[in-house]
Amino acid sequence: MPSKIGFVGLGRMGANMARRLKDCGFTVSAVYDINHDIAQALALELGASASRTLAEVTAAADVVITVVTDDAAMRSIFFGETDNLLVDSEGRLFINCATVSPTVHLEVETAAEEAGAQALEGCMASSITQAREGSLYLMIGGKEAVFTMARPILENLASNVRYIGNAGEAAKVKALVNMVMNINTAALAEGLGLASALSLDLGMIREVFAQTGAHSRVLMTDGEDMQNRDHACFFSASHAAKDSGIALQLAESKSLNLPLAAATKAQFDRMVAAGLGELDKSGIAELTFPGRG
Amino acid sequence: MPSKIGFVGLGRMGANMARRLKDCGFTVSAVYDINHDIAQALALELGASASRTLAEVTAAADVVITVVTDDAAMRSIFFGETDNLLVDSEGRLFINCATVSPTVHLEVETAAEEAGAQALEGCMASSITQAREGSLYLMIGGKEAVFTMARPILENLASNVRYIGNAGEAAKVKALVNMVMNINTAALAEGLGLASALSLDLGMIREVFAQTGAHSRVLMTDGEDMQNRDHACFFSASHAAKDSGIALQLAESKSLNLPLAAATKAQFDRMVAAGLGELDKSGIAELTFPGRG
Repeated sequence: MPSKIGFVGLGRMGANMARRLKDCGFTVSAVYDINHDIAQALALELGASASRTLAEVTAAADVVITVVTDDAAMRSIFFGETDNLLVDSEGRLFINCATVSPTVHLEVETAAEEAGAQALEGCMASSITQAREGSLYLMIGGKEAVFTMARPILENLASNVRYIGNAGEAAKVKALVNMVMNINTAALAEGLGLASALSLDLGMIREVFAQTGAHSRVLMTDGEDMQNRDHACFFSASHAAKDSGIALQLAESKSLNLPLAAATKAQFDRMVAAGLGELDKSGIAELTFPGRG
Repeated sequence: MPSKIGFVGLGRMGANMARRLKDCGFTVSAVYDINHDIAQALALELGASASRTLAEVTAAADVVITVVTDDAAMRSIFFGETDNLLVDSEGRLFINCATVSPTVHLEVETAAEEAGAQALEGCMASSITQAREGSLYLMIGGKEAVFTMARPILENLASNVRYIGNAGEAAKVKALVNMVMNINTAALAEGLGLASALSLDLGMIREVFAQTGAHSRVLMTDGEDMQNRDHACFFSASHAAKDSGIALQLAESKSLNLPLAAATKAQFDRMVAAGLGELDKSGIAELTFPGRG
């Protein structure tokens, strides 16, 4: 078991994964966030140090788990000119859990290896509660030997650890999962929105959906929230827009026309444009219910 | 228990519902289809008479179950000038199981009552196997007293009989179910199509979808068929286009903008235009997989 773990990106997921590993007996040695106040608060909670630079995290840890926002943030933490994680990183293992473009995972793996370090992608298909409880669904991309090395940590974070293939492959699967999930979410918002417009009982409609071909996982996770306008954020609309965008870029690279994915991204983009990007993805119902938004 | 049951519309659903009621000990006295050969074959199988006119069905039955194609077909069997089911229909009960516009159910109920008969909508959210086995999911619209009268028959056809409300209300719920189901189907076809374009293992992808937020009922019913191009028809693409159209008309009547439902209808319309309308709805994957269609 590695003695010291660092965390970069202390949002809803990263912070809870750090708490979980601490609970499991790991030493969380250093935490970093672009918002240093957040890092200080979590450092205090976990008895870690709040690093002021990325290089400090690498210096203080054997394994660094990163959970940042998007492609730009990933490139910034690994390739930033004045400060990055690869400085003196020989022997380190980076486990990258953000949902980013497959190509970024490849770039990071190559650069890590050149620096004498290792990188692994650990794409998460779960939410905050699962991060806190160590019951994530993790899809792994990278070298199998690196996966074997990381396994003891991964299995404390996840109830399901699935090796997908080389670097970038897990991110492709993740993009597909979120693309379909986002479409199903938009579909549900339209179904419940129209039901509301027709003055049908929404509790009854959700029950009928659950018993018929309209059933979906998002009906269980988001249906009641759409009805009750409870859009406290588990997975934000702006993240949904980003992830659908990754999938659409992959489709474009293969000259594939995906009208549903495109219409769904347009809906989440509308939310962001309307200032609703930090609502949970269930907030898409604000666009489809009569008299809302 | 009524002694004689007639059937109008002997397609994949109607014929199997007739077989089921016969198995349950009911007398199927008369069957009718616009294709008289089909009626004759089923009449022979069930020991019924193959009616040449709709009025003959009404004359030969206490309860007439109709399962026709669309709004036009429903209006034709109840309001056709030269021949229709309401001729001398006093005391008859009509149970109408086709997926048609809510307003048509209201028109039929009013006309039936004027003729001294009763009408009930029995919207089905199930497929051929369930019709044959008597395990349909039935949503009932109409007068509760009429529902009570029809119950012994309905419970032999369905494992789940749900009273929704007045005439037309069940058709609204059914339109919503199929609208959402159709969108989820189109979403799945896009996800698997992109997975195929990215050379990912489709069996693995379906497994990951089933364990994550991408899960849906249609993943279970249509996922493998999309992968294997097995589009033997349970619920046709042209029916999907029709049902999404009913939902979109309801949305339009409420000035509701539903971009996903619209994009889905456009996809099923493309299938119909390409001569693929009689494939199962899973055939929508022919539009989204690289190298197909």
